[in-house]
Amino acid sequence: MIYFDNASTTQISERALNIYNEVSKTCFYNSSSLHKGGVLAKTRLEKARQDILNCINGQVGDRLIFCSGATEANNMALFGLTRKNQSILVSVGEHPSVYNTAMALSQRGNEVDFVKLDSEGTVDFDDFKQKVCSKKYDLVSIMFANNETGAINDIRSLCEIAKQANPKCVFHSDCVQAFGKIDVLVDNLGVDSISLSAHKINGPKGVGALYVKKGVSFNPIVYGGGQESNLRSGTENLPAICAFAEAAIEKCEALKSNFDNVSKIKDTILKKFDDNGFEYEVNGSKTGSPYVLSVSLDGVKGEVLVHKLEMDDIYIGTGSACSSKSSDNRILSAMSKEKGKILGNIRPSFSASNTVAEAEIVAEKIIQYATELRNL
Amino acid sequence: MIYFDNASTTQISERALNIYNEVSKTCFYNSSSLHKGGVLAKTRLEKARQDILNCINGQVGDRLIFCSGATEANNMALFGLTRKNQSILVSVGEHPSVYNTAMALSQRGNEVDFVKLDSEGTVDFDDFKQKVCSKKYDLVSIMFANNETGAINDIRSLCEIAKQANPKCVFHSDCVQAFGKIDVLVDNLGVDSISLSAHKINGPKGVGALYVKKGVSFNPIVYGGGQESNLRSGTENLPAICAFAEAAIEKCEALKSNFDNVSKIKDTILKKFDDNGFEYEVNGSKTGSPYVLSVSLDGVKGEVLVHKLEMDDIYIGTGSACSSKSSDNRILSAMSKEKGKILGNIRPSFSASNTVAEAEIVAEKIIQYATELRNL
Repeated sequence: MIYFDNASTTQISERALNIYNEVSKTCFYNSSSLHKGGVLAKTRLEKARQDILNCINGQVGDRLIFCSGATEANNMALFGLTRKNQSILVSVGEHPSVYNTAMALSQRGNEVDFVKLDSEGTVDFDDFKQKVCSKKYDLVSIMFANNETGAINDIRSLCEIAKQANPKCVFHSDCVQAFGKIDVLVDNLGVDSISLSAHKINGPKGVGALYVKKGVSFNPIVYGGGQESNLRSGTENLPAICAFAEAAIEKCEALKSNFDNVSKIKDTILKKFDDNGFEYEVNGSKTGSPYVLSVSLDGVKGEVLVHKLEMDDIYIGTGSACSSKSSDNRILSAMSKEKGKILGNIRPSFSASNTVAEAEIVAEKIIQYATELRNL
Repeated sequence: MIYFDNASTTQISERALNIYNEVSKTCFYNSSSLHKGGVLAKTRLEKARQDILNCINGQVGDRLIFCSGATEANNMALFGLTRKNQSILVSVGEHPSVYNTAMALSQRGNEVDFVKLDSEGTVDFDDFKQKVCSKKYDLVSIMFANNETGAINDIRSLCEIAKQANPKCVFHSDCVQAFGKIDVLVDNLGVDSISLSAHKINGPKGVGALYVKKGVSFNPIVYGGGQESNLRSGTENLPAICAFAEAAIEKCEALKSNFDNVSKIKDTILKKFDDNGFEYEVNGSKTGSPYVLSVSLDGVKGEVLVHKLEMDDIYIGTGSACSSKSSDNRILSAMSKEKGKILGNIRPSFSASNTVAEAEIVAEKIIQYATELRNL
């Protein structure tokens, strides 16, 4: 089996799964319990929190709020960082957990504007500049790396521009597809909050976190026993949180070598396409994340190709898993791709454990099946 | 080690942990992916959903929405089942995830009333009847078994009375401390929604579910990729969901024998107290859940006793883990317990894997340490 759908979800690593099992067996306690089991659980919880804060260069006083995943983290950011009647700017290329939450806020009376994408899938700089300079947005939310195209936004510059235009503006960034793959250092980016997911970096499913900078006002969206400093109630999922921290450490330790390996995988596919005179169009830029390859194949339906490949135990995605059920594609449309290019879109996405040999096989199979489909 | 803090959290069972590992390794796919890995994940997801619906006698068309735990499920129920300006009735004995969410709704402009508890910790029937007959509540939320005292509410009768008073009333019940321990059958109870937790029944942490009856209107509180029929977005935590279903089946299969075993454990402690002429007061009634024993010991601080017991590797709770950090106790106060009884409260809580032999040891130690503390 070759699994090239890692932007959708990844398999938990052996190290992370071992930690999950160890904590489940030896430290299953409720961290709110007064007895020493509870104290032990609390210690593990804070260690995991610090480990992840270290990965992102979190500073003293910064908060990392554990939750059920990046979808909840993005909801927490948009609902929790805005007040009634405040205005919000998000890019049209955001993940549904940001985009649809912004839509929900719009229905609740918040003013929500959308910044355009350029043809390479990154936020349109001119449109962004024009928007933040013409209105004082209370919250701006721009993703780091796009889940469908791998397009990387220059968060540091965007944040700087937004804060120059309105120093009180809170800047959030969905860093799910960047964290553990590309340096995500909050002090360098200048952001107020970022969302993280474990299951995109070979950690467990069902756990994520929202980073919120020291001093930034935040209201919870889930109420209850007051866990996570009263910012996210619910018994902490300690086995998954510790496994998340383990996966984060594992990725951050090997960030550069993984990046090089995955770059080779992406390059191998594209070179094979070129060497065979295979017709394709990359959606996104050459400077995008090597972890995602979005290509459109004229005269081929992406979905049909996916099903051809699965017969050979090759799993790839079309667009994002989250939007795979809808026939339209918001991101590619925003990049002004025509209908044919959208229908012919496939999205192989990689993890550090994938190999160049796998990339060669997948490229060959794509060429073979796409050519067959084109000749029908 | 003797673990008598199972109302706070339980250790995941071997069966459930095995399933977690199996799914993590062999079916780690995103159920929204189009390839056959995704289809396989979707099949496992729906199987788990049906397994749990079977445990609660869910009917065709009823929904079970997986989420991160019962705290989220209770938030989903209160926020998702009510509209702007609607009125809500909850008991003063509810878990913080219901009580504090009701308070949040009150701050948002919803009218929220609280029904009293009687001295045994169950909902005051007369007060309940008087309230639902004097005002048409849109949502009523009453827990099945209380987490601090084990007091069991007659949900079927309360639901019947509420619906007689207002047929349009939606009735929610937090069934976290009852599910897998006492029959929780939605068709028999007549409720519109219930919340369930996995980690209270030796399932994994970080997963729970909200049951919503067919036809009952429900709005999501988390937005994103549209998972769970657009009612709870976020990549499904499939390993934990399957492990939750396994734990639910395991508990429901052995419900009666577990009940008998745990009843013996609770009785053993009380008998030992009586045989030794030990002074104590049970908070709650004789007909409460055998899984929880709340006792108040005059002249003893519960917290001090907990720390004495942990030296012998005996772990028990004081009040709920969720409220253990606060010096007040809302539930016991609502039962008109005086300050001394509240301070002297301990809450041993049991699981089916506990033994009568453990109960004897714990009872002896409680008597020994409480006597020492009283003689100081």
